[in-house]
Amino acid sequence: MNSGSPGVARPSVGRLPPGPHDTIADVAGVAVGHATIASGELQTGVTVVRPHAGDPFIDKVPAAAVVINGFGKSVGLLQLNELGVLETPIALTTTLSVGTVVMAQVRAAIAAHPGLARTTTTVNPLVFECSDGYLNDAQALAVTEAHYVEALSAAAPVFARGAVGAGRGMSCFGLKGGIGTASRIARIGPQHATLGALVLANFGRIETLTLAGWPIGPLLAERLAAREPRVSPQRDQGSIIVVLATDAPLDHRQLRRVATRAAAGIGRTGSYYGHGSGDIALAFTTAATVPHDARAPVRDVRVLAEAHLEGLFEAAAEATEQAIVDALLAAETVTGYAGHTRYALADLAPDWEQMIRRDRAPS
Amino acid sequence: MNSGSPGVARPSVGRLPPGPHDTIADVAGVAVGHATIASGELQTGVTVVRPHAGDPFIDKVPAAAVVINGFGKSVGLLQLNELGVLETPIALTTTLSVGTVVMAQVRAAIAAHPGLARTTTTVNPLVFECSDGYLNDAQALAVTEAHYVEALSAAAPVFARGAVGAGRGMSCFGLKGGIGTASRIARIGPQHATLGALVLANFGRIETLTLAGWPIGPLLAERLAAREPRVSPQRDQGSIIVVLATDAPLDHRQLRRVATRAAAGIGRTGSYYGHGSGDIALAFTTAATVPHDARAPVRDVRVLAEAHLEGLFEAAAEATEQAIVDALLAAETVTGYAGHTRYALADLAPDWEQMIRRDRAPS
Amino acid sequence: MNSGSPGVARPSVGRLPPGPHDTIADVAGVAVGHATIASGELQTGVTVVRPHAGDPFIDKVPAAAVVINGFGKSVGLLQLNELGVLETPIALTTTLSVGTVVMAQVRAAIAAHPGLARTTTTVNPLVFECSDGYLNDAQALAVTEAHYVEALSAAAPVFARGAVGAGRGMSCFGLKGGIGTASRIARIGPQHATLGALVLANFGRIETLTLAGWPIGPLLAERLAAREPRVSPQRDQGSIIVVLATDAPLDHRQLRRVATRAAAGIGRTGSYYGHGSGDIALAFTTAATVPHDARAPVRDVRVLAEAHLEGLFEAAAEATEQAIVDALLAAETVTGYAGHTRYALADLAPDWEQMIRRDRAPS
Amino acid sequence: MNSGSPGVARPSVGRLPPGPHDTIADVAGVAVGHATIASGELQTGVTVVRPHAGDPFIDKVPAAAVVINGFGKSVGLLQLNELGVLETPIALTTTLSVGTVVMAQVRAAIAAHPGLARTTTTVNPLVFECSDGYLNDAQALAVTEAHYVEALSAAAPVFARGAVGAGRGMSCFGLKGGIGTASRIARIGPQHATLGALVLANFGRIETLTLAGWPIGPLLAERLAAREPRVSPQRDQGSIIVVLATDAPLDHRQLRRVATRAAAGIGRTGSYYGHGSGDIALAFTTAATVPHDARAPVRDVRVLAEAHLEGLFEAAAEATEQAIVDALLAAETVTGYAGHTRYALADLAPDWEQMIRRDRAPS
Repeated sequence: MNSGSPGVARPSVGRLPPGPHDTIADVAGVAVGHATIASGELQTGVTVVRPHAGDPFIDKVPAAAVVINGFGKSVGLLQLNELGVLETPIALTTTLSVGTVVMAQVRAAIAAHPGLARTTTTVNPLVFECSDGYLNDAQALAVTEAHYVEALSAAAPVFARGAVGAGRGMSCFGLKGGIGTASRIARIGPQHATLGALVLANFGRIETLTLAGWPIGPLLAERLAAREPRVSPQRDQGSIIVVLATDAPLDHRQLRRVATRAAAGIGRTGSYYGHGSGDIALAFTTAATVPHDARAPVRDVRVLAEAHLEGLFEAAAEATEQAIVDALLAAETVTGYAGHTRYALADLAPDWEQMIRRDRAPS
Repeated sequence: MNSGSPGVARPSVGRLPPGPHDTIADVAGVAVGHATIASGELQTGVTVVRPHAGDPFIDKVPAAAVVINGFGKSVGLLQLNELGVLETPIALTTTLSVGTVVMAQVRAAIAAHPGLARTTTTVNPLVFECSDGYLNDAQALAVTEAHYVEALSAAAPVFARGAVGAGRGMSCFGLKGGIGTASRIARIGPQHATLGALVLANFGRIETLTLAGWPIGPLLAERLAAREPRVSPQRDQGSIIVVLATDAPLDHRQLRRVATRAAAGIGRTGSYYGHGSGDIALAFTTAATVPHDARAPVRDVRVLAEAHLEGLFEAAAEATEQAIVDALLAAETVTGYAGHTRYALADLAPDWEQMIRRDRAPS
Repeated sequence: MNSGSPGVARPSVGRLPPGPHDTIADVAGVAVGHATIASGELQTGVTVVRPHAGDPFIDKVPAAAVVINGFGKSVGLLQLNELGVLETPIALTTTLSVGTVVMAQVRAAIAAHPGLARTTTTVNPLVFECSDGYLNDAQALAVTEAHYVEALSAAAPVFARGAVGAGRGMSCFGLKGGIGTASRIARIGPQHATLGALVLANFGRIETLTLAGWPIGPLLAERLAAREPRVSPQRDQGSIIVVLATDAPLDHRQLRRVATRAAAGIGRTGSYYGHGSGDIALAFTTAATVPHDARAPVRDVRVLAEAHLEGLFEAAAEATEQAIVDALLAAETVTGYAGHTRYALADLAPDWEQMIRRDRAPS
Repeated sequence: MNSGSPGVARPSVGRLPPGPHDTIADVAGVAVGHATIASGELQTGVTVVRPHAGDPFIDKVPAAAVVINGFGKSVGLLQLNELGVLETPIALTTTLSVGTVVMAQVRAAIAAHPGLARTTTTVNPLVFECSDGYLNDAQALAVTEAHYVEALSAAAPVFARGAVGAGRGMSCFGLKGGIGTASRIARIGPQHATLGALVLANFGRIETLTLAGWPIGPLLAERLAAREPRVSPQRDQGSIIVVLATDAPLDHRQLRRVATRAAAGIGRTGSYYGHGSGDIALAFTTAATVPHDARAPVRDVRVLAEAHLEGLFEAAAEATEQAIVDALLAAETVTGYAGHTRYALADLAPDWEQMIRRDRAPS
């Protein structure tokens, strides 16, 4: 379980220990679901991250988002950063279908809250996207509102990774990308906190790939060129979305600081946040929620002492890098739109573990 | 022409002269169109501002957006501020229909650009919103993609204001709000530049209204309370969108500085950017466009010497305030959802011109 | 007491009631002190706002700063907005002396904290500035570190306003500006909170002045032109610093939202945030402090329910405008560098109260 | 020449070729100078980067700054990001001496510009800092204004690196850090552009160090622990300043995008932008200057087509990483305040080249 391609060992990055499952769901209460469309030229889908089992419109979730590179169409960040909370499940999908998923979230909110836009506020949809136009016939707009509902219903602590959900049609470093996840345990004084990451990985050019610290990009580029001589390589564009969850009690400003550390994890894989990439990180905490209808004018909250963020920063960088590695290793080879193929790393280089050991051997 | 309620004189604000029509279309090439839904409990619509007669996906328009208060769901600002251009017409609508208008822009881009998301990039929809849930049955989601097409097709230099298009269901200072517009001529050394504003005005509480420098809010609040004793007053929420156009040659950073001045104009009307309000300003220039497919690696552009922004800043503040005054005076009384009514200023206080003169007469 | 020019009635702005003294010190614990240099061509000084009676390095103060227009040289905002606290008294001075006051704060921190930069962190100086080069021989660099110490020592809940401290050489709307202050009481559910403002007002051009809602700028411009025919008028540059204090329990994000509302208050006086102006607002809360050496990894704090910010937003806009009015009315006429004179409003127009009533009398 | 520790080969990072000297001065016109204090417990200094041979107050330099982590006291970024230009040489120094260097820049501007703060504007000092309190008696405030003048006078295209100037007392990954530099050549269509980096490296914890792609931190940590068993290791704090120069014609927004890529380079060395670190990147272009006294209201400028930023982004990430490697390898071991020692990498591990090859040898 928790596996994309069973049997593939995943090289670990960094110094911190992972949580029990090394997924974002190691943060208690977090669940992930997918709706996958995999049919001929349609290779796309929707992934949903639920921050808790309840309705985030009623019990809003402290969150912050950071834009590393803004060549992207994600929706909902304005209000999230103004008010410091998210109030819908977190949806991820293909670029041109963002509006469809927004409407799915709106209709779900109307159904659940008869007073919406009447006796109470409207709802702030939260939809992230990457562009899967290489493998998926994006113009077909295959994602429907029902796919959002399906993904939301499927949300569970154990979930598939790789070429599933929103990750179905995504490319990463010229290979098959998609959904990856990881977690890390950070020391907070005498205690511990868990930080989990889920990425929708659709970025990077193959020559620059550093896999878990091993710069095997050039070797892989040779392999790929030999296999598909006519294909022009993926540029560092296409976007990565990083969702970070933690059970540490953080306020909005602190969550923004945590989200910023995703940039270190992305950089370590060889990316330089390419021009055409929408690189966005979101961090949320499950330590407390903010009630939609606060009766009392003042609320008691717990916040982490600032210096104790140190461990969470390291965890955020590591979990982001690890989740990208996971996306690459969990993926399967996919052929889709116009016969385009992206190879799984494990298919292009079944000997990747040996490649790693070899690439820097003394001569 | 250019009139909402014909015959209503509009008190002018500020020191700078208006353009020939005192509308955003005084900036040559700018056009505005509406699709209005006015039927029983459905009081809503779509407004489109076209920055030029061509396709902004091909000839992108330098632009910048500033979030004064981010309690809002507008879409497209991330990429706009990263790349410094807009690439679709500017759409305005009701909050819960943003996703529908996004999809309308996506489908229009697919139709116009067969290579979209395939051989070229995807498109960045740009949709602003305010919440009209007091007058409009927002949950009915009455806006369809066809309304966007209708508004776009209707775009012209001469256009209606007041309770039309996206402004149909909007409230402003407890009165009927909606679409307003104005322009100012700024001196740029020995020359002149035109700056125009269009607002979707849906903000403010009546007691705080200062109309063209006259603090008649308290008097109007008495009138309103006498007429509708059971109605709780509008709070300073509901949002205002300010679209500023200019023909001065400005780069992204300078456009951001111009957009910031909308806040002064909003403040002068009595607003304090209420908690629940999505107050956003966008500024664009028609002085030059940025080609989608730039062949040459370098482009020659003209930019205004920084100190000459002074006149444009004053113009932006004045035109924003004037456009809000216009929205209030151009509106007609509307009754909609649940029998709710918002009175036009001219209906609630036909003697508003005398009220202005009277409120500060020497005793 | 609390008076600059005794006997001058101050027209009040807005709807909210002021605190008992209508100064920033209505927020319990806040104190203000000045060191004033008023000698021939040297007309300058230092003003210090103490957020509480203790040492803010030990008991840090939650704070946030917002840059409305960044043509300014204020120091300390990076770290303040990253960590969400201030850790020195707030200093205000003339532009070219910022470095001197920074060093005064550094030396004070070294003296008080032997472990500074050794066993503990360094200190983050917080110094705001406006340029008083019209009335003061700025190049003389008359401010010394001793002036900071003097101003800090003088800090008290009752303090002078007008042409004192950092305000000694400042101009505002072509008139004499300087230090002004005000306060407002906001309803927070069944309770109340106090918000106070202190401004260093050095901005605006006379034609655009709206004084407490009365657009008397053009009349004053005529008066001034008659009195000083050769003087070119002040442009909207020179900066305004707005310091907002509140006893409401707010986190950093909320304080940032409060600080943003200073822009509305500035706009209401006729400013459009001129190109050459450094317009910056700082908000802090006295409701709680953050310990420098937090032993416990987690801290309990109280935060205001978000919707209750509404009253504080209105208070921030009103108090800012009122404090600017106060600066203009508390000032005295000053002649300084190169014989330049800025007239106090009360000197240029002793009949300003009648002017107000007259300017809009029915014809 | 261009050497810190002669004879040390520097492992190269990334794919792009370096410029002829692999320093920031490969960007024509850029010069660097140091004033170094190396005497007992005083181990500190000043470094100055001159963007061109003229006076940047007269010929301002397009620039943008990005704050990756704001636990820092750098001065001048507000105005730089508002106006898009720098107008003084770029100074780097120790944290507590920022105010002194600010005053040195102010006095230099007064001397050069008799109209400063009188007939023309004031000057915006630009001073970056890291904290060298481990090796340097920071409280002694050893840096004087004369050191800034000395460093400025010494500026030349060929300059020392390592434990010199502002880098004299800096630590990096628990080793001796300081000044490092590098350059990369990026393809811009059929042409090339040069991008150079200079870092003041004072960040990182030794266990996390990845040197030019080799994760030798844990090995070095063992070495260090054996050599200095009682020393507590450096945490990831202390700051890094990254100065990027390019001859490509970029506007402010594009320079901001380039500066953002420094974060990827920092991340690749193993940093996660630690809590206590002030991580700031500045990018400027030498392609054109902005005149202080612009006569013409409009200026013609050249700007790079956006997609061609791709190569500069990769160059910025690589040059930043390479400059950090350079700082570590160019440094010499320094003993200073309280007998504290930071070892040069080459001293702690003379066999570091073999360590690199060994650490991943097949077993």
